[in-house]
Amino acid sequence: MAGFLVLVCLLLSLRGAYSAPTLNHPLSKMLQEIKSYQSIADEIIEYSLKGPGQNQSYDRLSVFTDKFGSRLSGTKNLENSINYMLNALQKDGLDNVHGEVVNVTHWERNMEYATLLEPRIKDIALSGLGSSVGTGADGITADVIVVRSFSDLDAHASDVPGKIVVYNQNFVSYSATASYRVLGASKAAKYGAVATLIRSVTPQSIYSPHTGIQFYAGSVKKIPTACITVEDAEFLDRVQSRGESIKIKLFMGAVNYNMSQSRNTVAEIKGSMYPEQIVLVSGHLDSWDVGEGAMDDGGGAFISWQALSIIKELGFKPKRTIRLVMWTDEEAGGVGSQQYYQEHKDEAKNISILFESDEGVFTPYGMLFTGTPKAKAVMAQIGQLLNAVNSSEVYDNGGGTDVQWWRKDGVPTASIANHNEKYFWFHHSNGDTMTVLDPVEMNLCSAVWATYAYVLADMDQLLPRD
Amino acid sequence: MAGFLVLVCLLLSLRGAYSAPTLNHPLSKMLQEIKSYQSIADEIIEYSLKGPGQNQSYDRLSVFTDKFGSRLSGTKNLENSINYMLNALQKDGLDNVHGEVVNVTHWERNMEYATLLEPRIKDIALSGLGSSVGTGADGITADVIVVRSFSDLDAHASDVPGKIVVYNQNFVSYSATASYRVLGASKAAKYGAVATLIRSVTPQSIYSPHTGIQFYAGSVKKIPTACITVEDAEFLDRVQSRGESIKIKLFMGAVNYNMSQSRNTVAEIKGSMYPEQIVLVSGHLDSWDVGEGAMDDGGGAFISWQALSIIKELGFKPKRTIRLVMWTDEEAGGVGSQQYYQEHKDEAKNISILFESDEGVFTPYGMLFTGTPKAKAVMAQIGQLLNAVNSSEVYDNGGGTDVQWWRKDGVPTASIANHNEKYFWFHHSNGDTMTVLDPVEMNLCSAVWATYAYVLADMDQLLPRD
Repeated sequence: MAGFLVLVCLLLSLRGAYSAPTLNHPLSKMLQEIKSYQSIADEIIEYSLKGPGQNQSYDRLSVFTDKFGSRLSGTKNLENSINYMLNALQKDGLDNVHGEVVNVTHWERNMEYATLLEPRIKDIALSGLGSSVGTGADGITADVIVVRSFSDLDAHASDVPGKIVVYNQNFVSYSATASYRVLGASKAAKYGAVATLIRSVTPQSIYSPHTGIQFYAGSVKKIPTACITVEDAEFLDRVQSRGESIKIKLFMGAVNYNMSQSRNTVAEIKGSMYPEQIVLVSGHLDSWDVGEGAMDDGGGAFISWQALSIIKELGFKPKRTIRLVMWTDEEAGGVGSQQYYQEHKDEAKNISILFESDEGVFTPYGMLFTGTPKAKAVMAQIGQLLNAVNSSEVYDNGGGTDVQWWRKDGVPTASIANHNEKYFWFHHSNGDTMTVLDPVEMNLCSAVWATYAYVLADMDQLLPRD
Repeated sequence: MAGFLVLVCLLLSLRGAYSAPTLNHPLSKMLQEIKSYQSIADEIIEYSLKGPGQNQSYDRLSVFTDKFGSRLSGTKNLENSINYMLNALQKDGLDNVHGEVVNVTHWERNMEYATLLEPRIKDIALSGLGSSVGTGADGITADVIVVRSFSDLDAHASDVPGKIVVYNQNFVSYSATASYRVLGASKAAKYGAVATLIRSVTPQSIYSPHTGIQFYAGSVKKIPTACITVEDAEFLDRVQSRGESIKIKLFMGAVNYNMSQSRNTVAEIKGSMYPEQIVLVSGHLDSWDVGEGAMDDGGGAFISWQALSIIKELGFKPKRTIRLVMWTDEEAGGVGSQQYYQEHKDEAKNISILFESDEGVFTPYGMLFTGTPKAKAVMAQIGQLLNAVNSSEVYDNGGGTDVQWWRKDGVPTASIANHNEKYFWFHHSNGDTMTVLDPVEMNLCSAVWATYAYVLADMDQLLPRD
């Protein structure tokens, strides 16, 4: 990459356009400069809401998800969908379209079921958790103990051996509650549990189980683990509270295969003056194997593509490179973005900002941002260009799973603030389909995304880090 | 029954308490009389919200649904649950506890699945519709045509022969949209369709199919029919709109058996002065075979029981009989309440009002009522006793499926006005469980139900019909 950049710089210097970035440019001058982009922002908004870009990201995504459905790491289907994307990005006329190989895990769910045997016969809907081992051909039939928290588990440790532990934890927030899904198996296995069934991490259910990743602690036995519905977790809790004994048969055909090859999907609009400097916009292309991965994260990946499409179609030539990355393996382990960081960390000084949309593409209302106060002031000034779409506010804590690695190098990260209040209703469930998304909301997100990306790629300086 | 009533009247007349109802009592006097019940209403509210009745209807219902789960007409499980109820009502010390035999339909779902074969392999979640025929052992594999309305079906009649018709109608309201579920099969069969898959009748989905009754027109072939999810109906519509051909394999093991015996479940608080006069409170005990029938209509049945329990436990002795009926077969055809009407229609002149709760037991805000303006004025005055629980309003169009038969005889009917905005999210789906219900909301509904029932059973006169 280094040799290539030198060549590009040399060519650009011949055009007389190249100058090294100066990071000490006064803030006031930067803010003033941003105001000059109002007409460009207006053009982007017009193009996205009423022009040829109208509904384009939604339509492209619906063609994609309708064709491929879910796209789990390690599957042929994910690789086929990546091939499709590489072809589509090429056809869209973007620069430097390519895949970057990543070795990812390959877990398969296969058949799974749970049956309540006592106190009565009843199907228990479940969704096995990513990386879980299977039960073996005979399944596991065992008595059940229901706990409501990790401390409740600790308090009943002596009752756990040989049992299936059901966690009926309250939903507090995704970040607070997901620990039961991620760590619940090993915490229970430590006390001798034979399997765990965990209340799905969601504030709303229509008897809908939700999957997600889980990790085994190195030192304890790997036991099968799945999420059940909110309804059944509450039901089993009530039954236990009446002193009735509970027995469940659990079968999970889950298999962990050898590592498999996948790819991060990359395309660019090459910068006209500082091509080695980068504004990175991203979402992830892989998904869980339930639903269609339309919301998580088809929407984020496709508004990111859309941002580049809008800028290209409007004929804007940003000074810096705008790079689209559609990550692989975000769900099953995050290897795609980790490896990307390892292979690209030398670029850290030249990356103005990394955007990731992985928390919904509903009606936007601003930007979430992680960076210095000076950089936040720049972001807020760009936000002012988006008053027409009510997305001018800038809040703290922006970024996402796939761009987090860059923070320790001081690279700013951002994500779109949107009305994603219902996000976890559908997240990691069969309900994650195009029905959740709305073309107008995606138009708005695309306009916000493109405006930020273009202004940051075109203004005189990189986003400040001081 | 007539002989029994004569005997009761005779016994009461010996006590010197009996007098014939006078229906021409001035309204103003009735309204004045109702005001005297404020302290009784307050006692009911206190008992239900903070006293021994607190959470009782919720707790009783959770024990019941956790024990029996769903309760479809024709099943042994429904009859077991009726036995349980008869025993529980007896234990509660209510009068005249008995079942009244009804011959009901007996439909069984059995195994069912649908698989999209073209343009790609994908499971299609479905819920076969009550009374649907099965597909036969080989299932039905056919091309698909998607229509959005009955007029759309008519317009494409020549494309229908040999195809599976998918209805992707918009959700307007339950009453407007359910016709697709109820009539969709025969309308498509008329044009030669081999099966129908109908978008579930709900405004919100997390990939959740909803079942319900359907009826075959006598003159056309009976074809298998099921509901699919909103998500898949929209998906198939999009695929068709791109000109791609769609093929589905449908298997339904549904069987319609011979008629089977069930029972309406009845209990009373016998009236102290006019025992032959009746205030009837009701809900239905049967449910669909998905979910647990907690909301539809365990909640309605159990607040009705609770109304009698509250009145009895508080030691109130209403002048008229308060009769609880827990209907059977509301879902699968409504035979329970139809037969009840046939067998009890001679009582019409003595029934002050029939209450049915079958539209949710969420936070109440008043009463829905069908009757004369004079009767509505009486209801509104009773509503004033419920200001403390914000349930004083009386609206038009009260009643329910099971009490509708009595309207042509001029008998007033009522149902509880409650915040059931999410009712159809869960209705007839696996999501109809105790998780949907709330003990405090059920306390409020029980208090409203008991207050209306008691005041109407105890005031000097029957509810006016003039």
